[in-house]
Amino acid sequence: MKISIAQLNYHIGNFDGNVAKMLEAIQQAKAEKSDIIVFGELATCGYPPRDFLEFSDFIRRAEKAVKKLAKAAKGIAVVVGSPTRNPVIDGKDLYNSAYFLADGKIQHIHHKTLLPTYDIFDEYRYFEPANEFFVVHYKGKKIALTVCEDIWNVGNENPMYTVCPIDEMMPQDPDFVINLSASPFSYDHAADRIHVLKANVARYGLPMFYVNHSGAQTEVIFDGGSLVMSPNGKVYDELPYFKEMVKTYDLDAVIRHKKNKTHIIQPKEKIALIHDALITGLRDYFGKLGLKKAIFGLSGGIDSAVTAVLAQRALGAENVRCLLMPSQFSSDHSINDARQLAQNLNIQYDIIYIEDIYEQFMTTLKPHFAGTQFNITEENVQARTRGLLLMAMSNKFGNILLNTSNKSEAAVGYGTLYGDMAGGLSVIGDLYKMEVYALAEYMNKDGEVIPLNTITKPPSAELRPDQKDSDSLPPYELLDEVLFQYIEKRQGPKEIIAMGFDAALVKRVLRLVNMSEFKRYQTAPMLRVSNKAFGMGRRMPIVGKYLS
Amino acid sequence: MKISIAQLNYHIGNFDGNVAKMLEAIQQAKAEKSDIIVFGELATCGYPPRDFLEFSDFIRRAEKAVKKLAKAAKGIAVVVGSPTRNPVIDGKDLYNSAYFLADGKIQHIHHKTLLPTYDIFDEYRYFEPANEFFVVHYKGKKIALTVCEDIWNVGNENPMYTVCPIDEMMPQDPDFVINLSASPFSYDHAADRIHVLKANVARYGLPMFYVNHSGAQTEVIFDGGSLVMSPNGKVYDELPYFKEMVKTYDLDAVIRHKKNKTHIIQPKEKIALIHDALITGLRDYFGKLGLKKAIFGLSGGIDSAVTAVLAQRALGAENVRCLLMPSQFSSDHSINDARQLAQNLNIQYDIIYIEDIYEQFMTTLKPHFAGTQFNITEENVQARTRGLLLMAMSNKFGNILLNTSNKSEAAVGYGTLYGDMAGGLSVIGDLYKMEVYALAEYMNKDGEVIPLNTITKPPSAELRPDQKDSDSLPPYELLDEVLFQYIEKRQGPKEIIAMGFDAALVKRVLRLVNMSEFKRYQTAPMLRVSNKAFGMGRRMPIVGKYLS
Repeated sequence: MKISIAQLNYHIGNFDGNVAKMLEAIQQAKAEKSDIIVFGELATCGYPPRDFLEFSDFIRRAEKAVKKLAKAAKGIAVVVGSPTRNPVIDGKDLYNSAYFLADGKIQHIHHKTLLPTYDIFDEYRYFEPANEFFVVHYKGKKIALTVCEDIWNVGNENPMYTVCPIDEMMPQDPDFVINLSASPFSYDHAADRIHVLKANVARYGLPMFYVNHSGAQTEVIFDGGSLVMSPNGKVYDELPYFKEMVKTYDLDAVIRHKKNKTHIIQPKEKIALIHDALITGLRDYFGKLGLKKAIFGLSGGIDSAVTAVLAQRALGAENVRCLLMPSQFSSDHSINDARQLAQNLNIQYDIIYIEDIYEQFMTTLKPHFAGTQFNITEENVQARTRGLLLMAMSNKFGNILLNTSNKSEAAVGYGTLYGDMAGGLSVIGDLYKMEVYALAEYMNKDGEVIPLNTITKPPSAELRPDQKDSDSLPPYELLDEVLFQYIEKRQGPKEIIAMGFDAALVKRVLRLVNMSEFKRYQTAPMLRVSNKAFGMGRRMPIVGKYLS
Repeated sequence: MKISIAQLNYHIGNFDGNVAKMLEAIQQAKAEKSDIIVFGELATCGYPPRDFLEFSDFIRRAEKAVKKLAKAAKGIAVVVGSPTRNPVIDGKDLYNSAYFLADGKIQHIHHKTLLPTYDIFDEYRYFEPANEFFVVHYKGKKIALTVCEDIWNVGNENPMYTVCPIDEMMPQDPDFVINLSASPFSYDHAADRIHVLKANVARYGLPMFYVNHSGAQTEVIFDGGSLVMSPNGKVYDELPYFKEMVKTYDLDAVIRHKKNKTHIIQPKEKIALIHDALITGLRDYFGKLGLKKAIFGLSGGIDSAVTAVLAQRALGAENVRCLLMPSQFSSDHSINDARQLAQNLNIQYDIIYIEDIYEQFMTTLKPHFAGTQFNITEENVQARTRGLLLMAMSNKFGNILLNTSNKSEAAVGYGTLYGDMAGGLSVIGDLYKMEVYALAEYMNKDGEVIPLNTITKPPSAELRPDQKDSDSLPPYELLDEVLFQYIEKRQGPKEIIAMGFDAALVKRVLRLVNMSEFKRYQTAPMLRVSNKAFGMGRRMPIVGKYLS
């Protein structure tokens, strides 16, 4: 028996596009004499479809897509994820299902059991869990179908769940396991995934075919890395990261796989994965919205420099332009560093001096500001003037504004709403400042792309004379560690102080994080690369008084 | 037996404040010789605490709050909602519980069974449902405790659920039912609530004490309206809307309540409720963040006029100021209408002409805009200049910027990001344009507050000569109806067209809604008054291609 796995980049709600892509993959699999082709979770509609699932019209379109695929399932079986209506009145309206299509018809529908409802996941908002577990019989084989999270409770070791779907099917003596996934990238996910698949094989002793999505949907990025596992517990094959691929395997070869064979598995170095993930995220945000061109402000600092490199690599130099917008507070090196970078990247740059506009604002506001001192207001006017100029260029020429803020800034509210916090997509908003530096070093590994001075000089917003980030914030080495414990690890002040951090510093940082919730609420979606990114995966009340 | 119900305005994460408020209510109840006092759902920590629940430190503080209340539970029993840790490893980490405190100790903990996970609710993200159902024995009575949603599946008629918690307790023969709620306001919720309580009493024939929160938490507003139901199915008492109150009832009097007695129940007129809800929302947003003063732009149009009246009524005239920011495209009547309104409301207003700044922007951008025509870019520069001026005044004087956009605009993306879409809180963002007009009429019911001309003139953004909203949008009467069907009723294009709306119009409107998702993503929280508001209750993918 031959089995093809199709690691594809779907587009939410683009049923025609998704079906066309799958029909093409079916053709390839047929040409390779495959018996079964497997697509990803909710492949008809893309993942996560979110509240589109509440529209009966949307489900109808998914049903039509399944029908089209069923027609193509002749001479080959097709396994595809799609939402199914729950025919029982009680419970949620839908199931998250794997369809088994063969002989031009729906042969079997298997529902997902474990419905992730945490972080970015809202599956119990829409779906009822499975309550039946039947293997599929096909060409003399018995197949255990599972959907994504279903294999993440091996031996009931996952504290979130009480059911192990494969345990329920084992009495039916399946020959192999298929898993349809839409498992989002984070920088340690590729390693976790292999670990979990090995645990499944160790428990059940069955070959497994794990099929993931590739590509990005707004902030959620899928890295692919689909896996074929031999029953000896070794990886038989791993598909590439961040790429589409259809590949066919001989089941007997997977089963006979020698224990001592060398397995070519891709490296999983954190910064390299993040680099590729962000390029995927950028490319698909533009591609899926039918956009091409980007714009952003280039300050000479590290954040906009890293964003510039990513944008150029994702969209092509010809689609990227930037503005250098010096003020009276900008240093010469900033302008030079920014210009040098733009030249290194071969991207269009324009210099717009903001001083005249700034002065005009101050003149207009003078009667209203009488008796007040220069403070953060005037700093914000500069940042917002830059935001306004960028948006004007964006509106006039159709270049989408990229936001260049990092996670450390976003966490403590070190940024100006409608100013440097403006933009349609936050490219590095899930990278702490020290990770931004690491990414810059990585970008320069084969020669200087980002000017060295951008990497080595002390960070500054340059909104008043001789300003440094360190005037208002703790050193980033320290800040990032405290933030990581609070945001990623959900440790409270007591626990973080017990780790040896200064108590006053910890309280100040946590307070800044909680008091900046109102700013983050209005920030663009941030490409997610960690296990806990700001945005849809971290939901906080603005008026909360906890630690603030 | 005497039972007190305490309808209080809690503050998320403000454990000390919430406990102090409850201790005071306990004193009052004791003074009234009450046997039991009942507080709301998750009263220790406020509702909805959202991802604060993932912090062990947060739960520890809730546990401490319960201990403090237990100490005060001497000579009186205290029923209070608070999160509880799930001691079993499998399943979610927490329960959403009702604590029964008496004799200085925790006597019983009853968990919530039905966990709303739809719209603004994410309870299954955090909580495990109850699997035990025991009545509480106290002073010779048997009490069935329920938490909020637990009473919303009477006779299993709610399609979302399969369990009826009170059914499970009926074999234990309870004497009465207590319900701890945190049931958010929407303009038809007060009527729904009475309907559901009547259905419960009809099924079980027991007296019921239903205790709701009052006050607002960011966008979520609680209207109070706590209810005491007699076993004959009639309302024995209804607490006021949007106010705190502690009131004590004699159980026998509630039980003996005559069927033909006249019940004084508050009117439930939609626009009046919305008016009071928005004032509550505004007041608590400011109060809970420790803020006092607001600012906004007054254009002479209906949206900013209605926002102004609400702000003045919520915060007091002395805490509200506004800017009139005419451009060369502003009409005389706009300035006059705005000035007249500010005078009617006795709020500070300043006039700032934006033309000089606009011209400076155009001068600075001229070399970059060479060969281009006046288009939406220049309109947006005006809107963003106004946004920038408002934020400058906000930063300088500490007045929080209120957003004045309505739901119709937000739906179709008729607004400028970082311009008129700026602001910390959207006051009328959940009101369709026709509802804004109705609210304006209501505000003028006892005399003209909003100048008549503001209500009668055709709406215009005044960003180019002789512009009218109707140049770009269908008439609001029509637009609002289509939006309501799509947003509130989740009808698809096929269904809406079948209702008799023009097919091209429907397709255009739905496309506009879906293509504006990126704008709404960056909008301030909107005070929620409908069953489907933009924001946390409506979660859509930005790159989705559905209907767009």
